[in-house]
Parts: sequence; C-alpha cells; structure tokens
Amino acid sequence: MRTDLTASEAQRLILDATRVLGPETVAIPAALSRVLAETIVATRDLPPAPNSAMDGYAVRAADLAGASAERPVRLRVAFEVAAGAHVAAVLAAGEAARILTGAPIPSGSDSVVRQEDVARDREQILVRVAPLPRQHVRERGEDVRCGERVLEPGVSIGPAEVGMLAALGRGVVSVRQRPRVAILSGGDELVELGGDVGNGRIVASNSYSLAAQCRELGAEPVHLGIARDDPEDLERRFRAGLRADVLVSSAGVSVGDRDYVRPVLEKLGCTLVFWGVKIKPGFPVCFGRFATGDGPLVFGLPGNPVSALLTFEQFVRPALRKMTGHQVLFRPLVRATLAERLEKPPGRLHFVRVELERRGSQVLARSTGTQSSGALRSMTLASGLLIFPAEETLLAPGDSADVQVLDESFFHSSEPGF
Amino acid sequence: MRTDLTASEAQRLILDATRVLGPETVAIPAALSRVLAETIVATRDLPPAPNSAMDGYAVRAADLAGASAERPVRLRVAFEVAAGAHVAAVLAAGEAARILTGAPIPSGSDSVVRQEDVARDREQILVRVAPLPRQHVRERGEDVRCGERVLEPGVSIGPAEVGMLAALGRGVVSVRQRPRVAILSGGDELVELGGDVGNGRIVASNSYSLAAQCRELGAEPVHLGIARDDPEDLERRFRAGLRADVLVSSAGVSVGDRDYVRPVLEKLGCTLVFWGVKIKPGFPVCFGRFATGDGPLVFGLPGNPVSALLTFEQFVRPALRKMTGHQVLFRPLVRATLAERLEKPPGRLHFVRVELERRGSQVLARSTGTQSSGALRSMTLASGLLIFPAEETLLAPGDSADVQVLDESFFHSSEPGF
Repeated sequence: MRTDLTASEAQRLILDATRVLGPETVAIPAALSRVLAETIVATRDLPPAPNSAMDGYAVRAADLAGASAERPVRLRVAFEVAAGAHVAAVLAAGEAARILTGAPIPSGSDSVVRQEDVARDREQILVRVAPLPRQHVRERGEDVRCGERVLEPGVSIGPAEVGMLAALGRGVVSVRQRPRVAILSGGDELVELGGDVGNGRIVASNSYSLAAQCRELGAEPVHLGIARDDPEDLERRFRAGLRADVLVSSAGVSVGDRDYVRPVLEKLGCTLVFWGVKIKPGFPVCFGRFATGDGPLVFGLPGNPVSALLTFEQFVRPALRKMTGHQVLFRPLVRATLAERLEKPPGRLHFVRVELERRGSQVLARSTGTQSSGALRSMTLASGLLIFPAEETLLAPGDSADVQVLDESFFHSSEPGF
Repeated sequence: MRTDLTASEAQRLILDATRVLGPETVAIPAALSRVLAETIVATRDLPPAPNSAMDGYAVRAADLAGASAERPVRLRVAFEVAAGAHVAAVLAAGEAARILTGAPIPSGSDSVVRQEDVARDREQILVRVAPLPRQHVRERGEDVRCGERVLEPGVSIGPAEVGMLAALGRGVVSVRQRPRVAILSGGDELVELGGDVGNGRIVASNSYSLAAQCRELGAEPVHLGIARDDPEDLERRFRAGLRADVLVSSAGVSVGDRDYVRPVLEKLGCTLVFWGVKIKPGFPVCFGRFATGDGPLVFGLPGNPVSALLTFEQFVRPALRKMTGHQVLFRPLVRATLAERLEKPPGRLHFVRVELERRGSQVLARSTGTQSSGALRSMTLASGLLIFPAEETLLAPGDSADVQVLDESFFHSSEPGF
C-alpha cells in the first residue's frame, strides 16, 4: 500500500484500475443522458420519399418558366396529395396537385410552389413565380441515407439523438450500464434521519450527500446503512455491497483505534492500493481493489461532511464518469482572479471553497468563509473549488488560480443572446 | 393575435404569461436538482456539541505549557470518550482522555492533541507538543447555529444542500413543482414507433425528442399521441392535455388547409397570442393562453424535427425554467469566431447549427452542414446554435457571433486542474 500520494498520483492509480462498464439495452426514452454503446447504422432513408417542404402545389417547373406576378401562369388542380397515403395519380403537363408539408411529391411533378405565391380560382391556380426544379422538395435520403453510420459509440445521448433513433425506427438501443454505488456510513455517533440526536449524535448526512452526487452523475446509489464501530457489523454490511460496481465508505479510514475497515476489507479479498493523499481537506482517503478483478472499486472517504463530498468529487466522480463511458471526465476549469489573500503551509494541495463572480472578462474568486472540513455550510455556498497547489504558500489578491466549477449554472446566461 | 414577431418580442410575451409553479413537499433525496420553495432555518446547532477534529487525546492546555519533543509532558489517561455516548467523567489536572474524531470533548478539557504527537506508555501518555486552548476542537454551532437561516428560497438543491438538510434533521422539504408538459404530434403521415412506414409515412419522432427536452429540464412529459388530420380527434386529444401546465403540439400550425389547430384551441377557450416569429428554422411557431388563467400555456411548434427541437429550445425551455423557479433561464452564451462564410437574406434571425472547437483562447464555430429544417442529423452534430441576427446578411471567416451552447460538455475539462 502506498501512502502520502499527490492528488494526481492518486487519481491516476484510480483511473488505471477503472474499467468501462458493459452495455445494456434500454428503451430510447431511458437512453437520455446515457452513453451509446453501439454504432447506429440507418436502416432506412430519411426522408423515406421526396416530400414537400411547404404547403402549396406540386407542379412541373417547365410549365412555369417565365411566370411572374405580372404574367401569372394558369394550371389545373388535378388532384390532392394526402400525407401518409399511396399516390397513384401522375401529374400531366399543365396540371398541379394540392400538397401539404410532408406529403409525398407525386410522379410527374418536380417542384413545389408555396400557396402564398398562388391565387386559387376554383379548380385552377394562377402561379406568380417560376420555381427552380426541385424547389421546396425534400429529397429522399436528404437527412440520412440507408446504410449510413449515424451515431457512433461513446456519444452522449441528448434529445436530438433520441429523436434520430425514433425516426430510424429504433425502439431500444444499447448504452453503457449505470454504475451501482454501495454507500456505507460508519461511526457510533451517527444516527439515521429521524433518530435520537442526544449526546452529540448526528445524522449520517454523508449517505444523503454521496447518494445525491451519484444520482447527479446517473449512477445508482445503494444504501448499506450505518455500520457500528464493530468489525462484524462492518463486514456484514460490506458483504452486502460486494455486487456493486463501487463501494464507498465514509468513516473509519483514519489511523484511530476504531480503524477496523482495513482488516475487514483485506479479509474480504480487497487490497488497499493507497491510503493518504496530500490534500486538504480529505487527507485520509483510501482506495482499494479486488485482486480477482470482479469485486467493486473501494473508496474509503473521510467522515467529515466536506471531506466526504470533496474526495468523492476528486476521486470517485471521475471513476464513475469513466465507467459510464464518458471520454471527458472532469469538471469545467476556469482561471480565476483572487479577490483576497490566501495562505497555507507547503506540503498539501488545498481545495478552497470559493464563490465565483464574473467581472467583465475576469472571473473573481472569493472564499466562502471558514474552510474547516466540518463546515458543510461552506459547500452549500461554493460554486467552485480553487486549487491552491501543494508547494505554494501564498496567493495574493490579483493572483490567478484554476477553479473547478461545481455549479454549472455559473455558465448559464440571463440573456437569450438575441 | 400578433404575427411576424421578433424572437425577443415572442419570448417576452411568453415569459410575461409564465408563472412560477406552486410548492410541493418531497423527501430530500427527491429534492436533488429541484428549486427550494421555503427558507431553511436551523433548528439545531451543528456540530451539536464541542467535539474532536482528530483522533488523539483530550487534555487541559495549561497542563502542557512548554511541552516539546525534548521536554515531553506526562499525563495519565483517565478514561476514554466513546462517540455518540453520554460523557459523565470530568477531566482533572494532569489527566488526558482518549478521544476519536467526532467524539464529544469531555468537561474539564479544553484542547485535543493528535495521537501522532503523543507516545503512549500503558496508562500514561508523553505529549511532545504544547497545544493552544481549543486546538483541534470543533465548537458547538461552528458550522450552523440554531435559529440561523441556512438556505434561501430559489436555491437549486445540489448534493451539499441535500447533506445539509439531512444534517439538520429535515426528512422532507418544500420545492417548486415539476412542470407537466402534454405533448401532441399531428399529421396523417405520422406513425408510432414500430408502425407501418410505407407510403412515405414516418415515425412521430418529435414526441420522443420533445419529451427528452422536457426530462432534461426536470419537467414531466405526458404523451397525448398522434392526432389525425381531423378536428374531432385533435379536440379530444387537446382536452386530455388541459390539466397539464404546458401543452406542446408539433404540427398543424401552418397556414395550410389542415390548420385545424387554431379553431380547436379557440373552441376550448385558448386565445392565440402570436403566430409566426421571424426566425429560421421555426417561423410557424404559435403561442396561446387561456383567458381564465387556469389552462396550460399552449405552444404550437412546427412539425419539422429540427424546427420542433429548436423552437422548444428558444421558447418552451425558458418558460419551463421560469415555472420551475429558476432565476437564470438561458443556455450559456459564448462569443465564437466563424471558421467559414455564412450568408442569408435579411429579415429573419437564423439559428445556425454549429460545432464548437477551442483554439487557444478562441472558440471556433463551424456549420454542421445542411441547415435544412428537416436535417435532424445536423442537430445531433451541433454543440451550439449560432445567432445570425435578423438584419445581417453576411458573416465572414474571422467574424464573431454569439453561440448558445447546447452541449454543456463543451465546458468540461480533460484535466482535473492539479
């Protein structure tokens, strides 16, 4: 087991041990926000037949050469084309067919004139424009041709992709599985929500915040409850989580007397890869894996609410993104200007919870106040985590630093852009 | 009814008619990504009692004045403090108490020394540091004080907020309701997924893409199916959607012969506010409301797949965001540099589907190819919509324009920042 790693060494070890999950087949509405696990090849042309892009009249362009508002050309309305129906009739010279948007272009015609460019006179029309051939005609296969590769594996499925799959007649699609994340809290001071909070006991709130972090990523949390400070209870609960893809425990990974976690994990066949990362908050984070390769990735996160949220963010989240099939694993980074002085001793990278504010082309970062690892409130106020590098000791007002943006509404606009 | 509006006039009329939905009470895991509808006032202190931030020993700082590695001070370990238990014992002068992270500080002690700074010798410890009073003590109420306002209405609930609510003992919370959006497709050329696509018939894919757009926003789609080109069928289906918050119909809002939508809506008591917005794609979009104020907002979107997605994006999405209680209603905007020449006639604002690429500090925008309103494929390739203003006719390579960013992974990073 390694110890005292840098954040980047720790993350590398984790991602090297992380495999993309297998595929599963889901109905297309359930594929939204999932990652495609197959190549989608079109099995039909879209549109399936030449059709009208406008409400108007199907015509023969040659009949209308020279037509204008001053010299309109008269055509006989021979028939009407209904959408979605077989068209038997063939358009002859001097004829037009009434046609609506989406209806198939009848044989014999090669163009559509918009109804705004026509005056109707009972069974005849007066056409005031000379259309080009194929004008207002959507050609067969114009959008997608049968046999064409339309979507590639690894694509994140959004509304347009869902619509495309439906248009191609795909009711189900193969996507990457959602990671199942077993979550355990540990410690005799913890109670479930609604439990007795006398004698300094506190709600096991990490179960809730970690589960929410999972769901935000599309992962599925599985609650293993609260383990007592007792190796047997811990082992029983860990066993219940061995079928998950990831097992996250918040507590019991310190060097304290109640550190039962390591021996219990080892008994179950899990090898600890590292313990202790040179970051603050969150130093006592650990990571383990099963030598057999069929057990979950195991993360031991500190019990402090902020440390738990933050180490999940840095180490568990990228692994879950990779499992889910995403190529880009990390939060947005912005270069921000410090609005205040920050100091620390060298040796550990600090994640400073900051509020971000746009000031012209600059982004200002300001600490949310106390940076104690107990101060959950500071996390509710933070829109980002400023990276104060391990060997730096001073960031002065006006200095710049990278900030991981947690709150993506930071990018949203109060203007539509028009 | 107004017609030929600018995009911004249309959006203003819609947002003026849009009301924030009422509150509902949900369990806190279900509150994730919802908007808080109440003020959260702390009903307890967090932490609830002074407790240890470290594994180590509770001490009296005065006993250790002058302690150092060279001159360690010896204390007797009088008792152990268990987490979550009542502590009856009181620390006397010359004594220490074994304590673990999170356990309450016993009476008589005022500081904690880390176990790394101590050598244990059976029932005694040798302390090599002189702690400050209150060192490694997390004070009662340090994070949150009872009576304090912790979260304000309008806040978007993320994992830290969920954790905070749990820590405060809140099992349920009041949030803004999710909008229910009734979705109707119309046209005889449309079939349900799996239906017969002969004679130019196509799958009603807009139902799928519009529903996905709703779900991405946290709104709840309600499928009204496919209306035939028949006023009675249309009326029956519209009636089924009158209890929704929003009714979206894609089709039948053109000026064509099959425009049954307007009379049917009027019969149901809906007044059309506008029809026709000077944009491309998407001109024939309409918006209606019920004079009584208790019916849904009604959007008639064009039937073309791209026009439907795009007019939802511009007009329905901001309304749903407002209903849901969000303050910031619009997509991120980036200023992009054109990689190619774009031309159009004046008169309508064009939304050009573009791919975005970062090149140093610049963002390059390149058209995804055909901009036909039928070309759903172009939407699957687009990471943004470039705004080509109504009265402009030329954008040359190197010119810059605003782009609405549809694909928020554009902001994500391939590096963690450390």
